[in-house]
Order: sequence, then structure tokens, then C-alpha cells
Amino acid sequence: MNKAILLIQCPDQKGIVSEVSRFLYSYNGNILEVDQHVDEEMGLFFMRAAWELDSFLLKKEEIIAKFKDEVGQKFGMEFKLYFNFPKPRMAIFVSKLSHCLFDILGRHHAGQLEVDIPLVISNHSDLKSIVEAFGIPFFHIPVNSSNKASAESEQLKLLKEHQVDFVVLARYMQIILGDFIKNFPNRIINIHHSFLPAFVGARPYHAAYERGVKIIGATAHYVTEELDAGPIIEQEVARVRHHNTIPELVQIGQDVEKVTLSKAIKYHVDRKVMAFRNKTIIFY
Amino acid sequence: MNKAILLIQCPDQKGIVSEVSRFLYSYNGNILEVDQHVDEEMGLFFMRAAWELDSFLLKKEEIIAKFKDEVGQKFGMEFKLYFNFPKPRMAIFVSKLSHCLFDILGRHHAGQLEVDIPLVISNHSDLKSIVEAFGIPFFHIPVNSSNKASAESEQLKLLKEHQVDFVVLARYMQIILGDFIKNFPNRIINIHHSFLPAFVGARPYHAAYERGVKIIGATAHYVTEELDAGPIIEQEVARVRHHNTIPELVQIGQDVEKVTLSKAIKYHVDRKVMAFRNKTIIFY
Amino acid sequence: MNKAILLIQCPDQKGIVSEVSRFLYSYNGNILEVDQHVDEEMGLFFMRAAWELDSFLLKKEEIIAKFKDEVGQKFGMEFKLYFNFPKPRMAIFVSKLSHCLFDILGRHHAGQLEVDIPLVISNHSDLKSIVEAFGIPFFHIPVNSSNKASAESEQLKLLKEHQVDFVVLARYMQIILGDFIKNFPNRIINIHHSFLPAFVGARPYHAAYERGVKIIGATAHYVTEELDAGPIIEQEVARVRHHNTIPELVQIGQDVEKVTLSKAIKYHVDRKVMAFRNKTIIFY
Amino acid sequence: MNKAILLIQCPDQKGIVSEVSRFLYSYNGNILEVDQHVDEEMGLFFMRAAWELDSFLLKKEEIIAKFKDEVGQKFGMEFKLYFNFPKPRMAIFVSKLSHCLFDILGRHHAGQLEVDIPLVISNHSDLKSIVEAFGIPFFHIPVNSSNKASAESEQLKLLKEHQVDFVVLARYMQIILGDFIKNFPNRIINIHHSFLPAFVGARPYHAAYERGVKIIGATAHYVTEELDAGPIIEQEVARVRHHNTIPELVQIGQDVEKVTLSKAIKYHVDRKVMAFRNKTIIFY
Repeated sequence: MNKAILLIQCPDQKGIVSEVSRFLYSYNGNILEVDQHVDEEMGLFFMRAAWELDSFLLKKEEIIAKFKDEVGQKFGMEFKLYFNFPKPRMAIFVSKLSHCLFDILGRHHAGQLEVDIPLVISNHSDLKSIVEAFGIPFFHIPVNSSNKASAESEQLKLLKEHQVDFVVLARYMQIILGDFIKNFPNRIINIHHSFLPAFVGARPYHAAYERGVKIIGATAHYVTEELDAGPIIEQEVARVRHHNTIPELVQIGQDVEKVTLSKAIKYHVDRKVMAFRNKTIIFY
Repeated sequence: MNKAILLIQCPDQKGIVSEVSRFLYSYNGNILEVDQHVDEEMGLFFMRAAWELDSFLLKKEEIIAKFKDEVGQKFGMEFKLYFNFPKPRMAIFVSKLSHCLFDILGRHHAGQLEVDIPLVISNHSDLKSIVEAFGIPFFHIPVNSSNKASAESEQLKLLKEHQVDFVVLARYMQIILGDFIKNFPNRIINIHHSFLPAFVGARPYHAAYERGVKIIGATAHYVTEELDAGPIIEQEVARVRHHNTIPELVQIGQDVEKVTLSKAIKYHVDRKVMAFRNKTIIFY
Repeated sequence: MNKAILLIQCPDQKGIVSEVSRFLYSYNGNILEVDQHVDEEMGLFFMRAAWELDSFLLKKEEIIAKFKDEVGQKFGMEFKLYFNFPKPRMAIFVSKLSHCLFDILGRHHAGQLEVDIPLVISNHSDLKSIVEAFGIPFFHIPVNSSNKASAESEQLKLLKEHQVDFVVLARYMQIILGDFIKNFPNRIINIHHSFLPAFVGARPYHAAYERGVKIIGATAHYVTEELDAGPIIEQEVARVRHHNTIPELVQIGQDVEKVTLSKAIKYHVDRKVMAFRNKTIIFY
Repeated sequence: MNKAILLIQCPDQKGIVSEVSRFLYSYNGNILEVDQHVDEEMGLFFMRAAWELDSFLLKKEEIIAKFKDEVGQKFGMEFKLYFNFPKPRMAIFVSKLSHCLFDILGRHHAGQLEVDIPLVISNHSDLKSIVEAFGIPFFHIPVNSSNKASAESEQLKLLKEHQVDFVVLARYMQIILGDFIKNFPNRIINIHHSFLPAFVGARPYHAAYERGVKIIGATAHYVTEELDAGPIIEQEVARVRHHNTIPELVQIGQDVEKVTLSKAIKYHVDRKVMAFRNKTIIFY
């Protein structure tokens, strides 16, 4: 089903739901999903509305202007309009660990992820043949301490050529520079292998082992310039015990990582995520 | 905060959200929560809207008629209007097992449950002194195979006298008769100590032990005439292992039961539950 | 590390742990893991002991006779001895749904599963190219109502040729006949897409939807002649809500299925499972 | 059933299980539970053995000396011997929040906790009447910035008079001083209302809200001089969403706190906890 999705943010005030739904109804829109959230502390209103596009009386390219005119301006709204077609184009960055990558490819192959995957980029070549068996182009761009900036330029060029909408770091073991991030604000999803904010940085499973925690976790978040500090999209956990060694924590954790990352991707693709002030609103 | 809650059900059609929100806005209603659900198979629309009452221009007693007139009739709506004050009046039925009862009393004492508890009824007298220490009247009505109908009459009389809105069976070990149930349609909440529909009936922990399941559960549901078959409100589970004896399953399960029941009560009290065709819609 | 694993079952009596550990110690065995379980109802004792093989003074082929002589006979033990090398040989049966298969192949590729996978057998050819990209032979054996017995003969022949130790039904959508099962007692692992014993048989997600459950699950079990009634190895669950359609239940459930099946395989491969009277003891 | 429980710690070496079980068997001990753990990094061996006392040929007061003589010295063991009778004596400290206290009292009342509770101590008098309804003495010892040391002296005196074995801080909102802690090494259990090490210190729910986490938790740990940094006994978590306010986080968290604390108490009472180097081994 072809649908349009509107994400709205504005100062909280009366009549917003009424006006937005009146607008959609007036052009024969069949509302499929409406969700709203009020942040009372900040006095802000957030809304997501999805409706069927086929019977809608406005053309895709008319909607933004009309909505701004009839509703948006009146309430001081910031809003974004999305369609579920063409599908968003997702690039995957990966290093050597395959669990998150294979999980995504498996879901995509099974028709569970409504994205196109025009390319996979890796700083190693290990996973090339399997990625290609799934019919997806694989680019090997080595990265080391001296070529980082130029490697990122090359990556950005590829992303542009392939018209990539957002990037998934599927256990990509390189820190991304600020310049790169600026090209994809709230459009780079990383999976961190701890229950943030515990165990920021490298080797979180080692840190979890040292502290003797009874539960480990994983966190999918948008990448911002501060390491592991961006808006959290999803978190999951798993129970561990005193006898679990670090390699066992890694293995238990990998199951959590791949499920967490895939959920975050799905929320992002379905336009169910609004990021604001380093937090996310997830309309699931 | 004084609020009104409207639960609506009608054939699915365009314009419902728009009209309901327009209605509330036209009388200066500040919408706090809106949730909707479309059952596509049945072509039915369900909605819950909550709004602030203090600034609303209609009086409490005017709302139903106005809403019916301006919106309800047009869409063929069935709807119910609730207020969060006075608080709903909840009776608790209990036998000898105290875990669910104490959990509810503890929450109530801590101000977490927005209900009045005018009485506890039990077929045993064991728990009388502690119930009374919480300041709640306790009625002991013995039940046996020969006096069941008359005991239920006595219970019903008490419920009527105390203007009870709904009943919670907090591990009340007696089957309730159809005549009693008819007085409280979808207003008797039972906790069954299994993950329904597995292990219907008596001794579910024994049955779980026999089958060798790795997870046990509890189910809070509205009571209907068919045993353990009413609309499910909430379910929770806990992991068990081969070495857990039946008494251990009972103990692990009791933690699950009390949490499940308390969640179900909270959903019911917040008017977040709509029951339809033996299923529930929970707008949490 | 080369290790030996002993699984023991006998009538409960004093001195078993003492004698078994004395035996291992007397031949310089370094015990890595000892677990025991007493089924008090049946008066039975179960034990699993794992020890380092390299420094052990008995040769692999001497152990059974010596143990029987010095310990086993005295206590009336039934016991089995396993080594973690050569790796057990696992066949995968699959139909069209790929999520469990890909999950297993991904884990195997990442070195997480200590098995050899000599072949994948399917009644469809859809997944052939990806299986082969993982370097594993794929056999397409069509099955229909008229050729079932002969198809199973062909499968059995392949399993024998490839010296298969156990079989995993990774959403293989065919019922296995009793003759086939007899060849692999407690060595065929199936994943059923419900929280057994709820929703036995076909279309469990439809049944879960109809009943309005709030949690769905998956069950990995050994295959016995009675459908979906064999010893349960592992179960997992996931929360669902009223708005989840059947296709969404399927998708949520697939994540649960693949994790549950992979855990069960791991327990089986690590010889942590003892099946007895249609239940399992899992020494994890 | 009367039972003895031995907790052992020593350098890892061959023959320990064999010798310990031989010792117990030689005096006709029926082993009920044996668990062991090897910390390979530190080369340390930990063991817990429980056996029936009634048929054991040694008297309670003979066991320590005999075991030391026959087994302990040879392996350089540190060990502790416990009996499940008389029951351990547990003091509860509480302030105004009642959820953990009531949960413990409820379990105790239901016979689920094998402890005696000789007293509850609080810096407020609010919960006095209900504690007394459960038949337990309540002592009100006000604490403020100027009387802290003397209040703790008074508490210690009460604990001594009532022969208290261990202390549970059931949301006791005062920091305990080092002098007090030294009297109860690894015998004061605190419940911290976050998933440690995230959100150490005051107001963890506020911090969780600020960071926008998707899961909150609670941690039961032994109290050491460094705040919220002692050995973790148990952790549990619960899912939260963007719309949950801080009061809602508090309420969701309280359910997690009480379950986590009660589990930790049970492990401690059953002597299933060994603390070592700021971590715990839990033999459940």
C-alpha cells in the first residue's frame, strides 16, 4: 500500500490533532496511524500521521505546500513528509564481525525490511563473497591511521553515487569523523555492544566482566560527534552468570546486538523515530 | 488532574479522528491522549481519547448527549464516557494465598492505584487482620458445595451496598457462577496461574511440571462463563529449569501472578482496555 | 581444548559424586564441569561431567570399559561418553522460510557452533545458491503426498552417506514419519512456532491471534512420533500487542524461533541435554 | 530438612571435588547440591556443597575441625560452614517508600523466606503500624546531618541485642558510614534503583530520563565503602518508552526493585552467594 507519513513538531497548544486530521480528511485521506506525544517539560508537541496515498486528492508534490499553508504555519510547525516508495536506500558498513550484517541480509532476503541496499562498504574484504551471494555490491576501502580522511571521502563519494539515504554501522570498528557525520545527521545508526550509558567506549564486554554485572546489553543509537552519546533508538539485554567468560559474553551479546540493530533499522525505515535534544520518540 | 476518557467503537470509515478531535477542540478540550486501532478483518474502528476536564466548556453531564448528537450518531458509534473522579470502586476476592492481595494493598498504600477499595471478601478468615491493618473492611463469607448460590447472593448484596464498580479475583479459589458474572460483564478480573491457553483449569503448575516447559506464566483476564477462556488483558512469564520442583514453580509463578494482575488492574482503572469478541485492545 | 563428556543416569544413592570424581582423579583427569540432578519423584540421579582429555591417563577407547568396571556397574548406571572432537555432524532440513537456516549458517560461519554441516536438504530449491555460498552442499528432494516414504528413504540414504549425527528441522514444513524418527531417537531437533503446549499443530500464529494472547513464543524440541509433543529443549517468548496483524506476529515470532533453535542446537552439541520420560534436563 | 552448606575457596588444582565428596560420603552424607566454579584468570576454585544433616555421622560442632584436618588444609582452603537452622536473622532498614518492605513482609508471611525478622529500623515512623500488623517490632531512629554517627551506634546496639546476622536496606535513604559497614562485611544488602554501573548516586530515574534510555533497571549489591560500587548480587530490568514521565519511571522501577531485592535476599539466605574481589558467584 502506498502511504504518506508526516512527522510534526511544534509548541504544544490546543487544536493540533483536530486541524491535522481535518486537513487529511478534507483531501479524502484515510488515516492509517496517528500517534502523538507531548513533552510537558519543554512544552513541545510531536505527532506522526500516516495515511493512504492512492485515494488522497493531493499529488505527492503538492502536499508540503498545502499543509504548510493550511496547518503548519498557524501552529509554527516543523514537519517532514515521507513516502514508503521508492524505498529508502540503506548502506551498510561492516568490518570483520558478520553477525549483524548477516542478520540484516537475512531479513532483507526474507522481505522483512522495506529498504534497498545498494552497497556494503568494509575496511576488510573477508565478507565479500557472501554479501555478493545475496546480490549486493561490496566495496573494500581499507582504513588506517594515516588515510582515514581520504577513506571517508571515498566512502562519501560512493554513498552519493548510490543515492544513499542512511547508513548502518553493523559493528564497523572505526570511529567516524565529524565531517562524515555532518552529511548524515540522525541518519547514521550504530550498534554499541553495551547497555549505554554503562561501558562507553572500547571493549565493553571486558568492562562488564570486570564489574560483575548480571545482565549485559546492546544499544542502537544515532551517531553524533560525541562517542556513544547520540540519541538512543533501541536497547535490549540478556542475562549472564558468573561462569560466563568474556568470549561467552561476546557471543551472548552478539545475539542481543543483531536483534537490537534490526529493530532500530525497522523503526527508522518506517519513519517511527523522531530525534530531539539527544533523545528519541519512537512511535511503535 | 481531572480528566474525561472516551472509548469509542464503530464501523471503520474516513473522518472519525477528525470529527472527534474537532468536537473536543470546539469545546476547548485539551487532548491528553489519543489512541486508535482499526481491526481490518472486521472493519471496525476503536478509539480512546482523554482530555482535561477543568477547562472544558461542557459540563460532565452534558458531554454524552452533545457528543452523540454532533459525532456519535453520524458514525454509528457505541461509546462510553468515564471520568477519573470519583475513583472507581474495586472489591477484592481472596482465599488463603496472600501474594496478589498484599501486592495490591501495597500499591494502593503507596498511592499507585487510583481506586477506592471499599472491601475485601474472602471464603477464609486468615487474612483478616492484615487487611484491616491497611484500613480496609474484611468480610468472611464461607463457601462450600452446598451454599455456593446463597454465598454469591450475599457477596452481590455487599458489592451493591458498597457501590462496587469492578471485582478482582486475587487468587480466589472458587469458580464464579454465571449469574454472578452477568452482574459484572467485563468487570471481573481474574488471575490464572498459567500462560493461557496452555494449562487451563486446576493445578496448572503441576501440568507445566509434567510437560517439562522451560517458561511458566500467568494470565489476567476478564471472567466469562467459560472457564479461563475470557478476554486476556495481560500475560507475563518467567524462566524455569529442570531442577525446579513444583513448590518452586509455585513460588516463581507467584511473582509473575502478582505483577500481571496489578498491570491488568491498572489498565482497567485507567480505562485503557476495550474488550471485543473475546479479545482486548489495550491502549497503553 | 580436547575434552571428554560423560552423561550418567542411575537410581539415586549415596556416594555417586564421590566415586565418579575419584575415578576421574585417579587417572589424572582435570574436571572442567560437574553438574548433577536428582529427580526425587522418580528416585533417579543424573550427572554430567566434563574433563580435559590431553592429560588423562586413559586412552579414549579405554574409558568406557574402565568406567563401567570401576564405577558404572556398582551403581547400575546407564551412561554415554562423548568427545568434542571430531565435531558432531549436523544436517539441516529446510523448506522456503530462510530465517532459521541463515541464523545457523551465520553462527557457523562466525565459529560459534562446534559442528560440521555436511549437507542441507530441502523440499524446495529456493535457498540453494546462498547455502552453497556458505560452502555447504545442498540437496533438493521434492516431497509430495504420494512420494513421502521414498523421499524419506532418499534423505536417510544421504544422511548415512554423510555420517550425520543429528538433524535440525529449521522450519521444515513436512511431518516426519515414524520410520525416519526411529533412526534418530532424540537426535532430531524441531522448532515449533508456538509456546507449547499452547497451539499445537499448523498455523499457531493464526491461533495465537484468534485467542488474543499478549505473548507469543517458540519451542525447540526433540521430534517424537506424537506431533509437537516431544521433550522440550528450549523456549523463548516475545511480547505482542492488539494491533499486531498475523504477518507481524509471524515476523516477531521468527526472531524468537531462530534464537530458540540456535540455543537448543548449542545445548545439544555441547552434550548438555539429557532426555528422560519426555522431559529434558539441561545442564547449562 | 536439616542441612549443612559448605562454601569453599582455594587455588585451583586437581582432586578437589573428589576429596570433598569422599569426605562427605565417608560420614554418610547425602549430597543434595554440588556446584563449582573455576576462575581461570585467577586460578581459583569455588565450591558449594549442601548435604542432609540428620543421617550425617559427624555432629554439627565436629564438622569444621574434621573437614579442615582431612581436606581443607591439604588444598589450602578457606571455607565456611552454615546450617539452615536456626534461621538467619535479618534486620530491615527502611525510610518512607514501602514497596520493598511490603514485598519482603509479604513473602515472609507466605513462608517463602527462611529467615527470622527480629526488627525493622526506620528513620521515619510512617510504616510502623503495618510492620507491627505483621507481628514485627519497629524501631524509629531519626537521622539527620548532626546525629548520624550516634544514630548508627544506636542501630548497631539494636542489631547486636537482636543477634542480627545480616541487614537489608529496603530503600533506606541514608548513606551508611564505613564504621557501620565494617561490622557487616558482605552482610548488608542494598537495592539501588538503577542498572549499575549506569546512574550511580542520587536520582537515577531522573538521570535515566535525561539520557533517554529504553530500559531501566535495579541492582541489589553488598554495601562497601565506595557508594554503589559493591559486589552485584542481582539485576533486573524493565522496558520504558519516550512517553514515560519520571514518576512513571519511578513506579515501573519500583516493581523491578522489589523483585531484584527479594531474589538477592533469597540467594543470600540460601548461602548461594560467594563474594570475591568485588564480584559475586551465585550458585543458583
